[in-house]
Amino acid sequence: MPRHPFDDDTLHEECGVFGVVGVTDAANFVALGLHALQHRGQEAGGIVSYQEDSGFTSARRFGYVRDNFTKASLMETLPGALSIGHVRYSTAGSKGATQIRDVQPFFGEFSVGGTAIAHNGNITNADALRRELIDRGSIFQSSSDSECIIHLMARSLQRTIPEKMKDALRRVEGAFSVVAMTRTKLIGVRDPLGVRPLMLGKVADGWALSSETCAFDIIGAEFVREVAPGEMVVITEDGVESFRPFEAQQPRFCIFEHVYFSRPDSILGGRSVYETRHAIGVELAREAPVEADLVCPVPDSGTPAAIGYAAESGIPYGMGIIRNQYMGRTFIEPTEQIRNMGVRLKLNVNRALIEGKRVILVDDSVVRGTTSRKIKEMILDAGAREVHFRIASPPTAWPCFYGVDTPERSKLLAATMSEEEMRDHLGVDSLRFVSLDGLYRAVGEAKGRDASCPAYCDACFSGDYPVEPADMIEKGFELKAAE
Amino acid sequence: MPRHPFDDDTLHEECGVFGVVGVTDAANFVALGLHALQHRGQEAGGIVSYQEDSGFTSARRFGYVRDNFTKASLMETLPGALSIGHVRYSTAGSKGATQIRDVQPFFGEFSVGGTAIAHNGNITNADALRRELIDRGSIFQSSSDSECIIHLMARSLQRTIPEKMKDALRRVEGAFSVVAMTRTKLIGVRDPLGVRPLMLGKVADGWALSSETCAFDIIGAEFVREVAPGEMVVITEDGVESFRPFEAQQPRFCIFEHVYFSRPDSILGGRSVYETRHAIGVELAREAPVEADLVCPVPDSGTPAAIGYAAESGIPYGMGIIRNQYMGRTFIEPTEQIRNMGVRLKLNVNRALIEGKRVILVDDSVVRGTTSRKIKEMILDAGAREVHFRIASPPTAWPCFYGVDTPERSKLLAATMSEEEMRDHLGVDSLRFVSLDGLYRAVGEAKGRDASCPAYCDACFSGDYPVEPADMIEKGFELKAAE
Amino acid sequence: MPRHPFDDDTLHEECGVFGVVGVTDAANFVALGLHALQHRGQEAGGIVSYQEDSGFTSARRFGYVRDNFTKASLMETLPGALSIGHVRYSTAGSKGATQIRDVQPFFGEFSVGGTAIAHNGNITNADALRRELIDRGSIFQSSSDSECIIHLMARSLQRTIPEKMKDALRRVEGAFSVVAMTRTKLIGVRDPLGVRPLMLGKVADGWALSSETCAFDIIGAEFVREVAPGEMVVITEDGVESFRPFEAQQPRFCIFEHVYFSRPDSILGGRSVYETRHAIGVELAREAPVEADLVCPVPDSGTPAAIGYAAESGIPYGMGIIRNQYMGRTFIEPTEQIRNMGVRLKLNVNRALIEGKRVILVDDSVVRGTTSRKIKEMILDAGAREVHFRIASPPTAWPCFYGVDTPERSKLLAATMSEEEMRDHLGVDSLRFVSLDGLYRAVGEAKGRDASCPAYCDACFSGDYPVEPADMIEKGFELKAAE
Amino acid sequence: MPRHPFDDDTLHEECGVFGVVGVTDAANFVALGLHALQHRGQEAGGIVSYQEDSGFTSARRFGYVRDNFTKASLMETLPGALSIGHVRYSTAGSKGATQIRDVQPFFGEFSVGGTAIAHNGNITNADALRRELIDRGSIFQSSSDSECIIHLMARSLQRTIPEKMKDALRRVEGAFSVVAMTRTKLIGVRDPLGVRPLMLGKVADGWALSSETCAFDIIGAEFVREVAPGEMVVITEDGVESFRPFEAQQPRFCIFEHVYFSRPDSILGGRSVYETRHAIGVELAREAPVEADLVCPVPDSGTPAAIGYAAESGIPYGMGIIRNQYMGRTFIEPTEQIRNMGVRLKLNVNRALIEGKRVILVDDSVVRGTTSRKIKEMILDAGAREVHFRIASPPTAWPCFYGVDTPERSKLLAATMSEEEMRDHLGVDSLRFVSLDGLYRAVGEAKGRDASCPAYCDACFSGDYPVEPADMIEKGFELKAAE
Repeated sequence: MPRHPFDDDTLHEECGVFGVVGVTDAANFVALGLHALQHRGQEAGGIVSYQEDSGFTSARRFGYVRDNFTKASLMETLPGALSIGHVRYSTAGSKGATQIRDVQPFFGEFSVGGTAIAHNGNITNADALRRELIDRGSIFQSSSDSECIIHLMARSLQRTIPEKMKDALRRVEGAFSVVAMTRTKLIGVRDPLGVRPLMLGKVADGWALSSETCAFDIIGAEFVREVAPGEMVVITEDGVESFRPFEAQQPRFCIFEHVYFSRPDSILGGRSVYETRHAIGVELAREAPVEADLVCPVPDSGTPAAIGYAAESGIPYGMGIIRNQYMGRTFIEPTEQIRNMGVRLKLNVNRALIEGKRVILVDDSVVRGTTSRKIKEMILDAGAREVHFRIASPPTAWPCFYGVDTPERSKLLAATMSEEEMRDHLGVDSLRFVSLDGLYRAVGEAKGRDASCPAYCDACFSGDYPVEPADMIEKGFELKAAE
Repeated sequence: MPRHPFDDDTLHEECGVFGVVGVTDAANFVALGLHALQHRGQEAGGIVSYQEDSGFTSARRFGYVRDNFTKASLMETLPGALSIGHVRYSTAGSKGATQIRDVQPFFGEFSVGGTAIAHNGNITNADALRRELIDRGSIFQSSSDSECIIHLMARSLQRTIPEKMKDALRRVEGAFSVVAMTRTKLIGVRDPLGVRPLMLGKVADGWALSSETCAFDIIGAEFVREVAPGEMVVITEDGVESFRPFEAQQPRFCIFEHVYFSRPDSILGGRSVYETRHAIGVELAREAPVEADLVCPVPDSGTPAAIGYAAESGIPYGMGIIRNQYMGRTFIEPTEQIRNMGVRLKLNVNRALIEGKRVILVDDSVVRGTTSRKIKEMILDAGAREVHFRIASPPTAWPCFYGVDTPERSKLLAATMSEEEMRDHLGVDSLRFVSLDGLYRAVGEAKGRDASCPAYCDACFSGDYPVEPADMIEKGFELKAAE
Repeated sequence: MPRHPFDDDTLHEECGVFGVVGVTDAANFVALGLHALQHRGQEAGGIVSYQEDSGFTSARRFGYVRDNFTKASLMETLPGALSIGHVRYSTAGSKGATQIRDVQPFFGEFSVGGTAIAHNGNITNADALRRELIDRGSIFQSSSDSECIIHLMARSLQRTIPEKMKDALRRVEGAFSVVAMTRTKLIGVRDPLGVRPLMLGKVADGWALSSETCAFDIIGAEFVREVAPGEMVVITEDGVESFRPFEAQQPRFCIFEHVYFSRPDSILGGRSVYETRHAIGVELAREAPVEADLVCPVPDSGTPAAIGYAAESGIPYGMGIIRNQYMGRTFIEPTEQIRNMGVRLKLNVNRALIEGKRVILVDDSVVRGTTSRKIKEMILDAGAREVHFRIASPPTAWPCFYGVDTPERSKLLAATMSEEEMRDHLGVDSLRFVSLDGLYRAVGEAKGRDASCPAYCDACFSGDYPVEPADMIEKGFELKAAE
Repeated sequence: MPRHPFDDDTLHEECGVFGVVGVTDAANFVALGLHALQHRGQEAGGIVSYQEDSGFTSARRFGYVRDNFTKASLMETLPGALSIGHVRYSTAGSKGATQIRDVQPFFGEFSVGGTAIAHNGNITNADALRRELIDRGSIFQSSSDSECIIHLMARSLQRTIPEKMKDALRRVEGAFSVVAMTRTKLIGVRDPLGVRPLMLGKVADGWALSSETCAFDIIGAEFVREVAPGEMVVITEDGVESFRPFEAQQPRFCIFEHVYFSRPDSILGGRSVYETRHAIGVELAREAPVEADLVCPVPDSGTPAAIGYAAESGIPYGMGIIRNQYMGRTFIEPTEQIRNMGVRLKLNVNRALIEGKRVILVDDSVVRGTTSRKIKEMILDAGAREVHFRIASPPTAWPCFYGVDTPERSKLLAATMSEEEMRDHLGVDSLRFVSLDGLYRAVGEAKGRDASCPAYCDACFSGDYPVEPADMIEKGFELKAAE
C-alpha cells in the first residue's frame, strides 16, 4: 500500500476479505468491497460466485481490483446472488515466487457440495497440519497455509459444511477471520482471540461480511456489528444464525489495526480509526512535547496523528512533505537509475514551508528505520533548523505471526537499539515514541495496558504472543525470556 | 488527474513538457520529470531522444509514465544525452477519438536536420493556419493544433532551426510554452504573455527545462530561473543563450496555475504554490467568516486552503472526507452498477468526525457544481448539522482557450447563476468564493487586481481574454460585451 | 488441427505427451518435442521440470507451443535435466469452459516427494473413481479425468512413487499412455491394450519418451522401440528398467492413429504412417476403381492416400484444392460475415485444373459430412464434370471413448445412413469407403481383420469396444447389440 | 511466408494490395482479401475505410491479418462501403527498425478531401524525390518510398484527386501497382511496364481490386480482367472508368510471380499459376532428365513442379519431406538452442520413403544455397542413395529493385558460381536449373525468350533491368556490362 514511501520499511496487513449474499450480481458488490479493502492487500485478488445455472465460477488475478474486477466481460462470468472475495499482499521480495494458485478464495468440492473460503490471518501450526494431511493422502495445490482449512474440512466426519468448518477450525491455531460460501450460505468465522477484524453489514435485502466497515460505505451497506471473537455466523437469504464453536477466551484484537492497518474512515471497537489516531497524536504531544515551528506529517499514514499533535500542542500544522499521487504500487521493471531515486519518486519536500523552521515530523511507526533516515535528510536539505521525530506507536521490536508481513527480528531497528541509539542512528534532534500505555489510552483503555490481562494483541511491541507460534518455534524462533 | 472526485467537474491542465541536455541517458531523466508532471496530463506521454549512432528515436504511449517509461527494454531504445518529453490530458468525453498519432513530441525532418517539439498551451489561430498550410501542400498527420508549428518551420525561409522556430512562432497566436530539440540543442520558448509556465534548471553538467519546478526536485536538479515571457533559450552542452524573438508585452501568467493546476510543492513567481493556496485560505477566512466546529478540505486540492482557513479562523482542522488511494485514473470499462457509484468510489465520509458538527468545506473551485452537490449530500447523510462551502477561487464563468480543458460556457454553473442561486442550487447553508482581489492579494499583489493592467490572465473568472480567441470567434463564441 | 477445413467435422486426438531425462535444459527439448506433437493437441500445453536448487517448476499456457514455450524468459524458469510436457486438444464447442487448471501435467506432493504426470488417453471409469475419492476427502482441482491418477497415488499404501503409480493405474480402466516424473526418474506406462502410442528414444546421454517418433527427429534423438502395451519403464540417468504391472492381454492399438491422427513421418508398428496411408490409397483404387481424369486430395490429410490411389490407378494426380497456409487454428472472435465464409477461408479450388474434368476426391474420413458437402459444391462450381469421393477409412459409425474427441453417435453420418444414402446426401456421382479388411491389409495384416481376435481397436468403425465404457453406459450409452 | 523452410534463403514479395467499393462493411471484405494475400506480406497490415458519419478511419497492426482484422471490436471501427488495405513483408534482418508508421495505407488530407493509398512495388527514384520534397517543406512521417506519392499529390497543381495522382505518378520511376481511395472513389493504377500484378473483380453490386485473383475467390467475387500496364481505373458505385496517363511501353510483367510469388490458385495472364509451375516441371524433365526412383518436392512451393516432373518422367512422386503445419512465421524470441535447430523445426524427412532411393528433389529456386545444403544433408542422413536437385527457375544472379526483397548481389550463389561450382558446393549428385527459354515456354511463349524484346521482367535471372534503378546506381550498384 502506497501510504508509505518505502514498501519494505513498513508493516503490511496481508489480506482483506469480503462476502455478500442476497443481492443481484453479488460479485459486483464484492469487487467494490475489495476495492475499498485494497490497502489490506495489493498483490492479487480473487472472487468466487455461485448461481444455480452456472454453478461456482471464479476469477483470480494479479494486480489491483480496479484494473481487473471492473470489466463487464469478466464480471459477467461471475453471476449470482452469493459471492465472496479476497485481496492479498505482496510479501516483500518474494513476488517472483507467488503463483496464481496461491491466490484465494480456495475452493473444495465435497460430497455434500462445494465450498469456497477466504482467509485473513495466519495459521501458526500450518506446517504441522500440512505434513499430517499429506501423509493421509491430501494433494495440496498451493503453498498457502490457508489451504489446510479446505483439506481438514474434506476429511471431517461431520455431515454439513458449517459443521465440517467448525471441525476443521478447531484443529487450527493462530489468527483467522474467514469468509466462506456454499451454494446457499455465506459464512463468517473469527478465531477465539479475534485477532483480525470481521464486520457484519446489511445491504438492501441481503447481508455482507467485511474486514473493515469502510467497505460497507462504498456499497451503501449499513454497519450492523462486529462478528465477535470466537463466533461463527451462518447467513442465508433468510437471516443470520450465530454459533460459538470454540472455547471462550479473553479477546486480543490486534492493536496495530488502529495504528496503521485499517483505513481511517473505518470503525473499530465502536470508534473511528481517524479519531483514535488523532488521539494518539494528542497523547504524543502530552508525553513528548518539544518547542517547534511546524508539525508536519509523513504522508499519508502520519496525518491524523500530526493533526492531533498540532491541535494539542498549539504548534501550526502544515504539509511539509508532498506525496506524488501517481505512484501506484511502484515502478515496474525500473531502470537502475530509477531504483536509486528511492524516496524522491514518492515524496517531495515543500521547501518553502520547511526552510529555517524547527520541524516535528509525525510518522506512524519505525520498522527498519531506512525511510526515516532518508526523510530526515530531505528535510535537512530543505533547510530545516531542527528535526524532531514523533512516532505514533511504541517501538516495533518483535515480528508478527498473525497475518502481518514483518521483517525477521534482527532487521527491526527497535530489536537491537535503545530509543537513544535509534535517535543517534537516525540523526535527528529528538526521537520519541508514544508509550504502550499512551497507545492503550488512545484506543479507549483509560487506565492504559493491564499487563495481567491485556485487552489487545500487542506482541509486535511487547513480545507477548497470545498464541504460541508453533511452526516458528520449530524453525528456531526464540520467545521473549520470562522475566 | 484524480485530485478531484469527478473528472468531468474540474478544469484540467492539458499538458506538461520537460527536456534535458548534457547528461548520460537523458531519457531516464525525462521519464522522471514527466512522472513529476503527471498531474498536468494523464492520458498519454511521449519521449524523443537523440544519439549520433541511433539518430532520433521516440516512444509514445497511452497511460501513465510510471507504467510505460520505466521499463529498461523501452528506455534502452531512447539513448543519448539530449531528450525531451510531453504528457497530455484526456479531454473529457473524447477519449475514443484520440489516436497515438496525436501524442507529442512531434517530429519533422528538415534539410538542415530533424527537430522534435513538445507544446504546452493552445494556438488560438490553429484552424486558419492549418487551412493555409494544407492549401500549400502540407500533409498533417495529427489533429493537434501543435503540429502547425512543425509545418510552419518546414516552410520557413530561414536557414537554422532556431531561426525557423522564431519565424514559425511569430505566425502563431495564443499560449505556448514549447520545449524542442535538434541534434545538438535543447530549445525553450514562451509566448509573449507567458500564459503557461516554463522553468530552467541545472542538473549535473547539463540543463533542464520543465513546466514546473517539482520536476527538478525529482531528478536532483537545481531551479535556476523561469524562462521569461517572450524569451527563447537555446541550450547546448556549452551553455544557455537567450533571445527575445517577439515584441514585448505586459505578461499575463495564468492565475489558475496557482489555484489548482500546479503542484503544491512547485515554485511559481518566487512563491511556493502551497503557500499561495494557504494564503487564499487565510483571505477566505477574512472575507467570509462563519461560526463552525470543523474546517474540512475536499481532498486533495482543497487541503492547503483549508489549513489556511483553519489557522486564520481558529476553528479545528480535520479530515472529514477520506480519499481512496487506489482510484488511479478511473475504473476501466466499468459495469453500469459501478458507474452509478460515482463519488463513493473515490471519497468516503469520516462519519465519526462529521456527525453533529457545523462543517466548513473548503474546495478549490466550482465548475459544473455536480460534485459539490454530491459531497454536500454525503456530509449531510453523515449527520452534519450545517454545511458551509468556501471556494478558494472566484466563480468560474468563462471557458479557457489557452490550453485548459473547460466545459462550454453554458455548462459553467457561475455563467448562469448568481452566488445566491448557486447556494440554493447546491443546497448548502452558505456558499462563498474568494474575491478576485483576494486572490490577487494571495498571489502577492498587495493592492488586488489592477483592472487597467492586470498582472495575470484571469479570463476564466473575468472574461477578459488577453489574446483574441480567433478560431473560437469564427465558430460563434461571443466575447463579453464591453461595459 | 488445421489439417482439415472444418474443425467440427473431423475426429481429434486429444493429447500428446513428451518427456526427457539426462540432458541439460531438458525443458527446451520438451518444448521442441511438443511442437512436433502439436497436431495431437492445439488448445494448450504445459511443461514441468526439476532441478535441485529450484525444485519442481511448471508453466501451463493456452495456445501453441511455438508461441509460448520458445521465449527465453519463460524457459529459464524451467531449469534442470528432467522434464515432461503435454499438449491438449480443444474439444469442440467447449472452449469457454476449459480453464488453465485443466491443463496438464498435473502435480502432486507426496510424503516421499513430488510427482508430475501427463496423460494421453481417457479413463472410462473416471466418474466412479472421482466420486469415491471425494467421499474419502480428496480435493479435486480440475475437471480432468486424469487427475484421478494423482489422488489414487496419494492414497496408495505403497512406499515408492513407481509402486504408487502401479497401484493407482491398476484401479484405472480405459486407455492411458502416461509420462511421469519424480525428482530423479522419468516414467512411462502404457495400458494393457496399448490403445494409445508411446515411444522410447535415446538422446545424447539421456532418454526420451514421446507419443510419436516424429518428435524424436526434431531433437535429434534416435528411436529405440515402442513402450509395449502393459509395460512401465522407469528411467534414470543410469538406464531403463522395465516392469509389467498389469495382467497380460491381446493388444488393441488404435487403428485410427494410422488413418489420421499420427503424423505421416512417424513410425508406428515398424511402418511409416505415410506408407500405410499410401497403401490405403492403393487398396481403395483396387476396391473402388472408377474412370476419371484427375485424382485430387482433400488437403492435407488425404494427400498420401491420393498419391497411392493415383499411382495404382494410373490416373493423373493433381492439387485441385489449395489450402491457405495462414489459417492457424481459426479466426479468433470472427465477425458474423467471416463465420459464414466457412470452408472458403481455408481452401480454394484450383479452377483451371478442375474445369471439365471427372475428379476423384480422396479424403481420410467422413464424420458429420458437412465438409464433404461443401467441398463437393466448390468442385462442381469450378466446373467439374463428375465428382467421385474415395474415403481412406471405413464409415465412422461409433464414438470413441479412449481419448479421441468424437461427436455423439447420432451426429455421425454413418450411424444413420447406408453408404448409398450417404452418397445421395452428399450429392456426388459415387462414394466409396475402404473396407475394414482393406484397412487391415494396409496396416500389414495380410489376411484382413480377424473378427475373433482383432489386432487393433477399431471401435469407431465396428462398435466393438475392447474396454467397456463404464461411465458412458451409466450415462445411457447403448453398446452394439450382440448379433 | 512459410512456404519455404528458411526465411532468409528465399525471395519475398514485399506487398499485397486490396480494395473494394459498393458493398456493406467493405472493410470485412478487405480483411478477407488481405488474408488471401497474406503470402505477399506477413509482417504487418493496414486497412482504411470511409463512411460519411465517421469519415476516414484506419487501423494498422503488426502480425497476421487473421489475428488482427477479424475481431468484431476492431472491424466495427472501420465502417463504410469503400475500403482499401495493404499487407507488408518483413525485410530480412530489419524487423526491429520497422515502425508502425511505415505500415500502409498512407493517408493525406488535401484541400479537396482525403486520400489513402496502398502501394505494391518499389520506386527506384524515391531517394531523389524525398530530398526534393523535403527541400520544399514537406514533412515525412515514414521511411517508406511510397510516402513520396502522397506528398507529390499534395503539391500537384491539378484540381481533382485522380488528376493529382496522375500528376504525381508521372514523376515516379520503378514498379507500382497502387490501390487508392477518396471519399467516393476506388482507384487502381499500374506502372507502364506492369511489373507487379493488379486485378479487377466484381463483387455483388460493387467492385474490387486485388494483387491476385485468389483474393476474389475468398470473397465470392468474379474475376473480370487485369488492370492493364499503364492503366488507371477510377471506380465509383456507378462503374469503372479507364484512363491511360502514361506513355505506352512494351509491358514487362515480373516472371518470378509465376515461379514463386503468386499463389498456385491465382490466374496470371489467363493461366493458372499451378499449371504454369506444373509446366515448368515438365520442361525440367525434358531438359534435365535423370534416372531415379522418386520425385520429391521441397514443400510447399516445389510441389506443382515436382508433380509435373514426375508426370513427364514417369518416375513415382512421393512426399519425402514433411512440413510441420504449426510453424507460423517462426519461433518468437527463440532460445539459442532452438535457433540452432534450423530446418528441422520446419521440415522432417520421411525416412521410410527415402531410404535406399535415388531421389530427385524439386525446388522453386536457389538463392543463397544454405537451405539446399541442409535439405541435401537431411536426405542423405535418411539413407538416400543419390540426390539430384532440379530447380524450377534459372539461376538467380541479380537483385530485384522492383518490390522484391533480395539479398545483395554478392550473397546470391549464382552471382559467384557456375552451375557446376554450385553442384559441388551443394554436394549433390546433379544440379540443374530450368533454362530461361524453358521458363518462357512454360509461361506460354512458345518460342522462348525474345532477347530483343522480352515479354517479361526477368532481371533477377538476366541482369536486364527494364527501369534504371537510379537510387541504387547512386549508391554504387553496377549494372551488367554491355556485351
